[in-house]
Amino acid sequence: VQKSTKSIPFYLALVHYPVVNRNGAVIASAITNLDLHDLARLACTYRIPQCFIVTPLKDQQVLAARLIAHWCEGAGRESHPDRWQALQHLRIVPEVGVAKREIQAVQGRDPEVWATSAGAGRAVLTHRAARRQLEASRALLAGPKLMLLGTAWGLAPGLIEAADQVLEAIQPDSLYNHLSVRCAAAILVDRLLGPERLG
Amino acid sequence: VQKSTKSIPFYLALVHYPVVNRNGAVIASAITNLDLHDLARLACTYRIPQCFIVTPLKDQQVLAARLIAHWCEGAGRESHPDRWQALQHLRIVPEVGVAKREIQAVQGRDPEVWATSAGAGRAVLTHRAARRQLEASRALLAGPKLMLLGTAWGLAPGLIEAADQVLEAIQPDSLYNHLSVRCAAAILVDRLLGPERLG
Repeated sequence: VQKSTKSIPFYLALVHYPVVNRNGAVIASAITNLDLHDLARLACTYRIPQCFIVTPLKDQQVLAARLIAHWCEGAGRESHPDRWQALQHLRIVPEVGVAKREIQAVQGRDPEVWATSAGAGRAVLTHRAARRQLEASRALLAGPKLMLLGTAWGLAPGLIEAADQVLEAIQPDSLYNHLSVRCAAAILVDRLLGPERLG
Repeated sequence: VQKSTKSIPFYLALVHYPVVNRNGAVIASAITNLDLHDLARLACTYRIPQCFIVTPLKDQQVLAARLIAHWCEGAGRESHPDRWQALQHLRIVPEVGVAKREIQAVQGRDPEVWATSAGAGRAVLTHRAARRQLEASRALLAGPKLMLLGTAWGLAPGLIEAADQVLEAIQPDSLYNHLSVRCAAAILVDRLLGPERLG
């Protein structure tokens, strides 16, 4: 786990298990190549120290590791330094608990876990309140945070229930609510860490 | 071109030509499957009437049309209605000029073209100012807008120079400036059409 004095103690986890499929069954989803690149670039742009790629499947861990190694070693690293710079923000872990322990080891405190969901659920942490909490974390007045992003049809209910907070949905009033996890991650990160809006 | 009374006269164009490669040479980039899904879902979520997929290459037009047809007809449409609902927001055109003419035909006025770029360039339209202009467009006090998004390493200089305005970069002060076009599109659309932020 990397720690930079310039970065904020705010971490992402792209969760491939446990997530739900479109029938609501709990599944392990497959790694998507572009997810890894997009999340790595997002973390790098917004100075997020680490994005955990969560999958318990050994073959998927090997696949992700191979992809990262391709761009972070040898000819790939030399020919595309911007990819290496981004992909070093990724870390493959078998479960969310391991990500929490790694953050604890670096930051000295357990992270507060924030679940995300496109649906309306239990009482939510508004983006405005989340920004304030991250400012407190940045000033070391509060502990680190870990935001969980679900692939497939989203985080499994058990993971949402186990989280410390559930973030407000991006467009709670929209009739259509199926952003890709890549776009949802980008919007949430920008709302929480980007410039103040913009009246 | 679709027109909905609920939507805002704001259009997207995902440009595959003319764009630049990492050496700055003008090229035509290949269609990326996930770009089409992500942009379609983004347009659908934010009630953007249409996202134009711009490519002059016939085989790429056929590829994109086949992908859209797969989800918008027959079994694909029935099994994944959320994909059909989103993908119908896409329209394949050979060049930006055709997109402009189609918008003019529906809206009765030529669109103002907004270029996007990750770099610092000529005098920029801030996101705050762009929000105000879109509010004027929504109230029909101003004409429609067309925002151009570049694939590969971004829009070709000629396309940027020919645009009416150039939008402010997403993170002009970041040391790392390589968001994917999917994530950049999501952040820009949310900044321009999403809720007011969030002090």
